[in-house]
Amino acid sequence: MSGDARGLWVTFEGGDGSGKTTQAELLRAWCEDEGHRVVRTREPGGTDVGQTIRELVLHHRGDIGPRAEALLFAADRSHHVAALVAPALARGEVVIQDRYLDSSVAYQGAARSLGAEEVRELSLWATGGALPDVTVLLDLDPVAARARLDADDKPFDRLEAEKSDFHARVRDAYLALADADPERFLVLDATASAEDLAARIRERVAPLL
Amino acid sequence: MSGDARGLWVTFEGGDGSGKTTQAELLRAWCEDEGHRVVRTREPGGTDVGQTIRELVLHHRGDIGPRAEALLFAADRSHHVAALVAPALARGEVVIQDRYLDSSVAYQGAARSLGAEEVRELSLWATGGALPDVTVLLDLDPVAARARLDADDKPFDRLEAEKSDFHARVRDAYLALADADPERFLVLDATASAEDLAARIRERVAPLL
Repeated sequence: MSGDARGLWVTFEGGDGSGKTTQAELLRAWCEDEGHRVVRTREPGGTDVGQTIRELVLHHRGDIGPRAEALLFAADRSHHVAALVAPALARGEVVIQDRYLDSSVAYQGAARSLGAEEVRELSLWATGGALPDVTVLLDLDPVAARARLDADDKPFDRLEAEKSDFHARVRDAYLALADADPERFLVLDATASAEDLAARIRERVAPLL
Repeated sequence: MSGDARGLWVTFEGGDGSGKTTQAELLRAWCEDEGHRVVRTREPGGTDVGQTIRELVLHHRGDIGPRAEALLFAADRSHHVAALVAPALARGEVVIQDRYLDSSVAYQGAARSLGAEEVRELSLWATGGALPDVTVLLDLDPVAARARLDADDKPFDRLEAEKSDFHARVRDAYLALADADPERFLVLDATASAEDLAARIRERVAPLL
């Protein structure tokens, strides 16, 4: 192990059903075929401490206020980076991770209970400012995606419309984050084929390995 | 329940063995005798969510870094204030609590792993800035207290001296907090008798009830 060793940290972001896990797995397989050691992980819950925190939040959802929830997720993040991500990177390994700080900022911002900037600052404090080398955003228009599924169905009721509006705000928040940090983000149209997406991701990651 | 109802929030601070629990119980008994409804609580761990967080920290102490630990305690605090303290105050009740934000600031500051100001800001963000009406600091010189106990014993070894140094820093941090907020703090010499201390505390609290 060299003191100069520095691995590569790739995070996947996007709404539910955008294909994050599929692409993360394809990237893992490719990196391993190329002879790299890979750590596959996720937030929340990538460590045993994180699992406890994740279960606590899910079990008490509705009782726990937005600030306590944001603090618990930040604690999970702090521990996850310190205990798992940073040591793997120090060993020169590739860390491939579902969701990181951009998820917190996009979802909390969309929920409108906390300011996106506060959530970002909290997260950066938690990890001492750690940011991935590459963040793949699998961008999916939730209204179009839903409309396709529901083409033959009855129109949205009010609750459905509110949910759809929330997911549209999450998407907008993600795109704003990507705009603000184009060096880190790779934004891909999630409606492309899995093979096409995997090829685009490999193209971006390969020179960094 | 009137919308104008506003109870009284008293916190007790000080090192281990300074008599916080004894004085909190004496104050509780007196308030109840005076006809007030009292909520007795503590941090960390005054709620079921807080108990889980407290066990998580204690169980993993050593594995969890200082930022993750501070975030977990802040999450506990956020939930505790929102779920228990604020509703009791809104009902016009008296909340008597062992330890609050001053403990975090004094202990983290003394541990020197995180800045006291950062810890304070985190804690205030967690609770939306909630501060007690009265904070009783039971001040005890840890060196003098220890020296009395050890008068007939052999001198401190290095580890004991380090521990003693840590507790001296906690005490200094508490006194600095009290100096900075004399309106909120009541600083008492913890070597006084329990009866004398209880009388001083009642004297301060009575006009606020």
